[in-house]
Amino acid sequence: MKKAVVLFSSGLDSTTVLYYALSKGYDCNCLTFDYGQKHRKEIESAIAIAKDLKVEATVMKIALPWAKDSLTNKDVEVPVDRQDLTGIPSTYVPGRNTLFLSYALSFAQSIKAQKIFIGANSLDYSGYPDCRPQFIEAYNALIDSLDTNVEVLAPLIKMTKAQIIKLGIRLKVPYEKTWSCYKGKSEPCGKCDSCLLRAKGFLEAGKKDPLLAVKVSKK
Amino acid sequence: MKKAVVLFSSGLDSTTVLYYALSKGYDCNCLTFDYGQKHRKEIESAIAIAKDLKVEATVMKIALPWAKDSLTNKDVEVPVDRQDLTGIPSTYVPGRNTLFLSYALSFAQSIKAQKIFIGANSLDYSGYPDCRPQFIEAYNALIDSLDTNVEVLAPLIKMTKAQIIKLGIRLKVPYEKTWSCYKGKSEPCGKCDSCLLRAKGFLEAGKKDPLLAVKVSKK
Repeated sequence: MKKAVVLFSSGLDSTTVLYYALSKGYDCNCLTFDYGQKHRKEIESAIAIAKDLKVEATVMKIALPWAKDSLTNKDVEVPVDRQDLTGIPSTYVPGRNTLFLSYALSFAQSIKAQKIFIGANSLDYSGYPDCRPQFIEAYNALIDSLDTNVEVLAPLIKMTKAQIIKLGIRLKVPYEKTWSCYKGKSEPCGKCDSCLLRAKGFLEAGKKDPLLAVKVSKK
Repeated sequence: MKKAVVLFSSGLDSTTVLYYALSKGYDCNCLTFDYGQKHRKEIESAIAIAKDLKVEATVMKIALPWAKDSLTNKDVEVPVDRQDLTGIPSTYVPGRNTLFLSYALSFAQSIKAQKIFIGANSLDYSGYPDCRPQFIEAYNALIDSLDTNVEVLAPLIKMTKAQIIKLGIRLKVPYEKTWSCYKGKSEPCGKCDSCLLRAKGFLEAGKKDPLLAVKVSKK
């Protein structure tokens, strides 16, 4: 059976990618990172989804003591209600996807997996430089320089959030179990970039976000 | 003052690179990794050398639970007396330099350092794919894809071990304080690839290894 490493945070994108990789017949080995993110809640969601799917899941704890971003620093507020999502926001963790892919590469080489799946996309996104096609292409060139038979696949890279959601619905992704909000409180804040992009996606796809339905039904 | 991140293990190569970077006027910030290597002793040596030089040193603890190499696994012996150093040996830790550079990249972006120094070299070396010029070039292309003003410099990449040692002696590198042996016991084993390459370098440079002189004088 063909093996893959899947970078999996339980967010809308990476959960869709996990379901996509499974639909393509890959034996998926998930890697989830505990990097000091405020929304640590995503780690619990990732473990729960992987357990439901009976796929291997490994949580890697990594430290970035120098990071000054708002995603990992309590002293810096996650920005809210940003309407213009151009430019690099304070939530950008320098080197994050480079590090995640590098762990995935080491893992893939060790378990002889040929593919690494990542949910990066660059249309409805926060402007992170490490989510763009040129980054994925450069990372694959880096792997080639190591004479290693591993390839990074980013199947969502040129899809809108609405297209991702439609794909996920076809693949029966349980979006009610995914977690996107950067604030990581009991309910999604609805105002951070991640919530805004998710809401835009569901709106454009003409679907209701089942995570919010869960929220409403609980009240 | 121009800032640099230096990947520093206290080995012969990275210590020479640290002294080289300091000689070029860089404000050096060392990164040392505790990745489960048998020769953990190198970490203590790195801290001691950095302290002597009064340069910033950060030790990053990282886990690679899947690695099957002989450098981090107690169950796998470090190979000794290899005469033909072609091919990839069991000491190769997949993804190691990719990970180290990725941490360095994150660090450099956060402290606004423009350069990352690495002691990789590809002439008298163990055959690790992540020590070759094409890897360093590909890593720099990866950084370019992030629109980031950071560059990896590998000043030793095309030097023989003897040339590195001659450079280090000019720069007054205290080779008696460096540590190369993969076995990490009280004295260098003299038989692992790292010891063999070090001995070859000193022989060809027509110098005595002061680390071995220390050993002899202790007897």
